[in-house]
Amino acid sequence: MKRTLLALVFSCVIPLTIWGESMNEPLNLMPVPESVVTQQGRFALSLTFTVGVAGFGGSRLRGAADRFLRRLDGRTGLFIAQETVGIWGTKDRPSLMITCQREGKLQLGEDESYRLEINPEGIELSAPTDLGVLHGLETLLQLLAADRDGYYFPCIRVDDRPRFPWRGVLFDVCRHFLPLEVIKRNLDGMAMVKMNVLHLHLSENQGFRIECKTFPKLHQLGSDGLYYTQDELRGLIAYAADRGIRVVPEFDIPGHSTSWLVGYPELASAPGPYTVERGYGIKDPTFNPILKQTYKFFDRFFAEMASLFPDAYMHIGGDEVNGKQWNDNPKIQEFMKKNGLKDNHLLQAYFNRKILRILEKHGKRMIGWDEIYQPDLPRSIVIHSWRGKEALVDAARRGFPVILSNGYYIDLNQPTDFHYLNDPVPGDSPLTAEERKLVLGGEATMWSEIVTAETVDSRVWPRTAAIAERLWSAGTVRDVDEMYRRLDVVDRQLEEAGLTHLKNREAMLRRLAGGGDAHPLRTLLGAIEPLTGYDRHKVGVTYTSFSPFTRMVDAAVADPRPAREFNRRVDRFLGGKDKGALAELKEPLARWKENYQSVQSLVEWSPVLKEVETLSEDLSAVAALGLEALDILTGKQKAGPSWIAEAKRLLERAGLQRGELELAILPALQKLVDAVAGK
Amino acid sequence: MKRTLLALVFSCVIPLTIWGESMNEPLNLMPVPESVVTQQGRFALSLTFTVGVAGFGGSRLRGAADRFLRRLDGRTGLFIAQETVGIWGTKDRPSLMITCQREGKLQLGEDESYRLEINPEGIELSAPTDLGVLHGLETLLQLLAADRDGYYFPCIRVDDRPRFPWRGVLFDVCRHFLPLEVIKRNLDGMAMVKMNVLHLHLSENQGFRIECKTFPKLHQLGSDGLYYTQDELRGLIAYAADRGIRVVPEFDIPGHSTSWLVGYPELASAPGPYTVERGYGIKDPTFNPILKQTYKFFDRFFAEMASLFPDAYMHIGGDEVNGKQWNDNPKIQEFMKKNGLKDNHLLQAYFNRKILRILEKHGKRMIGWDEIYQPDLPRSIVIHSWRGKEALVDAARRGFPVILSNGYYIDLNQPTDFHYLNDPVPGDSPLTAEERKLVLGGEATMWSEIVTAETVDSRVWPRTAAIAERLWSAGTVRDVDEMYRRLDVVDRQLEEAGLTHLKNREAMLRRLAGGGDAHPLRTLLGAIEPLTGYDRHKVGVTYTSFSPFTRMVDAAVADPRPAREFNRRVDRFLGGKDKGALAELKEPLARWKENYQSVQSLVEWSPVLKEVETLSEDLSAVAALGLEALDILTGKQKAGPSWIAEAKRLLERAGLQRGELELAILPALQKLVDAVAGK
Repeated sequence: MKRTLLALVFSCVIPLTIWGESMNEPLNLMPVPESVVTQQGRFALSLTFTVGVAGFGGSRLRGAADRFLRRLDGRTGLFIAQETVGIWGTKDRPSLMITCQREGKLQLGEDESYRLEINPEGIELSAPTDLGVLHGLETLLQLLAADRDGYYFPCIRVDDRPRFPWRGVLFDVCRHFLPLEVIKRNLDGMAMVKMNVLHLHLSENQGFRIECKTFPKLHQLGSDGLYYTQDELRGLIAYAADRGIRVVPEFDIPGHSTSWLVGYPELASAPGPYTVERGYGIKDPTFNPILKQTYKFFDRFFAEMASLFPDAYMHIGGDEVNGKQWNDNPKIQEFMKKNGLKDNHLLQAYFNRKILRILEKHGKRMIGWDEIYQPDLPRSIVIHSWRGKEALVDAARRGFPVILSNGYYIDLNQPTDFHYLNDPVPGDSPLTAEERKLVLGGEATMWSEIVTAETVDSRVWPRTAAIAERLWSAGTVRDVDEMYRRLDVVDRQLEEAGLTHLKNREAMLRRLAGGGDAHPLRTLLGAIEPLTGYDRHKVGVTYTSFSPFTRMVDAAVADPRPAREFNRRVDRFLGGKDKGALAELKEPLARWKENYQSVQSLVEWSPVLKEVETLSEDLSAVAALGLEALDILTGKQKAGPSWIAEAKRLLERAGLQRGELELAILPALQKLVDAVAGK
Repeated sequence: MKRTLLALVFSCVIPLTIWGESMNEPLNLMPVPESVVTQQGRFALSLTFTVGVAGFGGSRLRGAADRFLRRLDGRTGLFIAQETVGIWGTKDRPSLMITCQREGKLQLGEDESYRLEINPEGIELSAPTDLGVLHGLETLLQLLAADRDGYYFPCIRVDDRPRFPWRGVLFDVCRHFLPLEVIKRNLDGMAMVKMNVLHLHLSENQGFRIECKTFPKLHQLGSDGLYYTQDELRGLIAYAADRGIRVVPEFDIPGHSTSWLVGYPELASAPGPYTVERGYGIKDPTFNPILKQTYKFFDRFFAEMASLFPDAYMHIGGDEVNGKQWNDNPKIQEFMKKNGLKDNHLLQAYFNRKILRILEKHGKRMIGWDEIYQPDLPRSIVIHSWRGKEALVDAARRGFPVILSNGYYIDLNQPTDFHYLNDPVPGDSPLTAEERKLVLGGEATMWSEIVTAETVDSRVWPRTAAIAERLWSAGTVRDVDEMYRRLDVVDRQLEEAGLTHLKNREAMLRRLAGGGDAHPLRTLLGAIEPLTGYDRHKVGVTYTSFSPFTRMVDAAVADPRPAREFNRRVDRFLGGKDKGALAELKEPLARWKENYQSVQSLVEWSPVLKEVETLSEDLSAVAALGLEALDILTGKQKAGPSWIAEAKRLLERAGLQRGELELAILPALQKLVDAVAGK
């Protein structure tokens, strides 16, 4: 077998835009592997493609190989002859030979490495565990390329393993319930980018989302009928396990607990009665930490949940206890005095220690949000950092294992590069080498106050793919432009998992257009984004569980591609690096300028669009301004001080939010106006 | 209250394009109600909209009213203050007052009528049963209109009831398993167009799709793990019942039964062993009708299923027994001789009578396909006609109740108007008035050989909405153009139910475009359709359960709107009725003519499109031909005999299928060429 190794050994400090000699396209691998060596040639895909397995071949591996075949024929339309991968160690050399040593354990730190080698004669995928095989198959599918002659895999050698062992997504299924199929398609998406932890936030003020046989009033009275049965949960855990993903449940206590107290008000720190919460924010209802029956309850509760969830970890939340019910309860105040608990934080630590003993009794390790951090807790517990990276550094220095979610709050509509550059252990981390090992990884958090099953995928994807890369790939992989290039490819491929982030946006626009042509709305969406952070709650609208989440702001996404590309081109244009940028700038500006009239006519029969009418008008105005600025900067037109003053007034007006949306192209326009002013 | 009744009383022989004086748009009701009287004025929708219930208000009604509120704010983006309809018989007059007498029974012939009256001051919906209320709420949502000032309901009075009591859709969940959520969203779609029977085809050669506790090898060995648990099924039945829909299960016996025999080969008419079938067509495996153990098996089996499914009817299939195993089995031949059963049909009748006794024992009425028809069976059984309307007429004349599916095979990609005009009791029916009463209604049948969960909605919708109208509305409602006008509106509204018929097509085109712009494929789809009938199985491709269903033919739909409109405009142009038609004809022709080049470049990186490349080329060529024909017909160009000869050659070539697709605009082009020739 002739094999010409190219000198182009991929190292993670170089952007991944590498071109093999035989390749028509750069590689679109996300996350970037540890090592990639491209070679000459290709392995051509045909109907006779076969998969064989040598060594260990359990049901997870076999299922993944079957799904691999189906995805391969789904993408290519080829009627691949092999239907199910049922033959092991065939004499005939299969097209793809999988070699695996053993079943991977679904536990922290298990070997997930793999090696993938594609030659013109065949493909070899080998891994110590089947978890590595799963990752290797995803890499292989990302490598599928094509030209007029057909589909092929470029010759390549990949050696790969993750940087962090804990790479998760939290789904809040409480504020808005997310049906099983939503979680399942997201598990498939997670597997595509090699994530391995599904964190289910199962209890909240707004809902208790799992059947509890010991205390059935939890789901019966606390869920509006929207919960997972234990059978469904078991099915979900098996589905995740088949994709190499652990399921870590969270039961958020002692705060965030209204829905528990609807059925069991006697456990609260104030008399009740309680009803399922419809509003958002921090609420008062809190478990009573001084009652024996509270701990009897949790002992029996966690006994049941510990047997339902196989994972070693149990997340107890522990965030945002406002202490109001504790302050107002004389018995609790008396108890604190008697036991020398000077403040509510120490009272919560007292509660946590008792809960910790219960979890340990049932064979679980405890994990909780920042607030559970308390120096005298044992170092077996994991601190989940959401408030800031200082908290993470503090905890790790004190010897606690930590995972990071601060900076990965994908519900807040921040741009992808913000999340991407948010490293759990940045190059300048103050942690020692030993302390760094305590940083286990991170989790994207999909809080669901203002998302529904219809919109949730568009908040998770594609941005979470960039977070997946941050947690899998080397810390030196930080090229934002290159990340966005690959993200655009992955974005589309994620639809293969059944994810609805692209198609539901189209459906929403069709609905919003009220029977008219949705295209002007699509154009508008390219230039606007939802307010970031918690600002959507601050501009006059009070959201509840029953609010409509079907408006333009719900269809809009963070850093939309057209705006992102426009902003980048303006930088190139002003930097003088790209003479061709001028035409590329004028095209979108002209489109945005013309768009207002079309949006305006849609409002005639779709008044739900009224709230974005002036935003669309301002987009048109600033686009016109941008075109003028380009003419001025290229000497075709002149600008006096009045032009500049007017431009500034316009940009200021255009900067106002409308319908909880704002223009995403203003930074670039500001730069153009500044350039005119500085001329 | 001033009320000006317009003289325009809607009668079903007039098309439904009626304009109330205060209305900006024609009504888009589908199915057409029995009686509609439009009035002046409107009821304006606002945040303070409330719903009240007088009389009976069970959980089905309350659930439907809650969903009504959510759909209303989902469409309008209004933060409607009322969250759940929990207050009954309020003193304050609610915006919508629902008056209902009793809970409807989910059984054949239950009262489903309702009256809806909208005045400027408020809306009244009254019905004898909550089933009528459900239908009335759907009518109300179809009436929601809007202009720049906001959303409103036009003043109107509707009195409505169905023509046929059995209005169903069959889902074959065997050839391709359809996950629960697929069925659920389709139930919502069915409810939107007032259908009331979900027929689940639960067993087939390719799969046994329900958990059976008595004979667990049925689902364990016969389903590839793809089946509904009984808990899931119970949940599905409850979900359907909440939407006024009965669930009729079908267990297809004695043929179509390979998957049963995998676990229980001793019940077959030939020794076995059996494996789950992957191919399609009529297969040999058949239950052995002469064994006592066969009937012991079915006695216990139907005992379990009868208690699981609450509906009065149990469908036993009974179609396409090829008799091969019976002919080849000497003991069966001997038995037939001894019992005077002259042919296999009589042997099957013997089997059916035994099964009938078992069903009756377990309190169920039998229904089966045409083949179970046998004059000496009791008139309690229902004949489900699939082979032809003669069979239906025969059975009804013999006194059997019948339902029609012949003509409603939505898997065969026939145009909507074909199904729409297919009346179970057409005006010229030879049946007497008494016999006509035996025609209970019909069912659209979604056989799933060549659909998957991704594509199935696009085969069911929107065409099934037209079938729903056929079964609900008067037989005199037959205006095809008017049907298509309303269908285009309903098509879009069906997305509200979560149906994926529109958005999955877009997703498939994105995938097929391989990262390129999918627009040329969308343009191509507007002019082509899948082969109809069983032709997709006849052109060289052998489908199995594992084939890819992701090609252009799977994204294409029957009578695509652009082609349909083009064909209609050509008729108007040639009929000389529409002088403005010329420009409207040139626009799509120019688009199709130019499209080929774009498709061609997509093939460069997406070879899955190769199979439609010459079809696209021919589309371009016939579009150019069409433009020339228009020029000739309007005197701008001249045509000699060679032009006509060449045109005929081109049309012939363009008529060939490619990729199981054909051009949908050829009939109109043929007419244009004929017009040139006849000039």
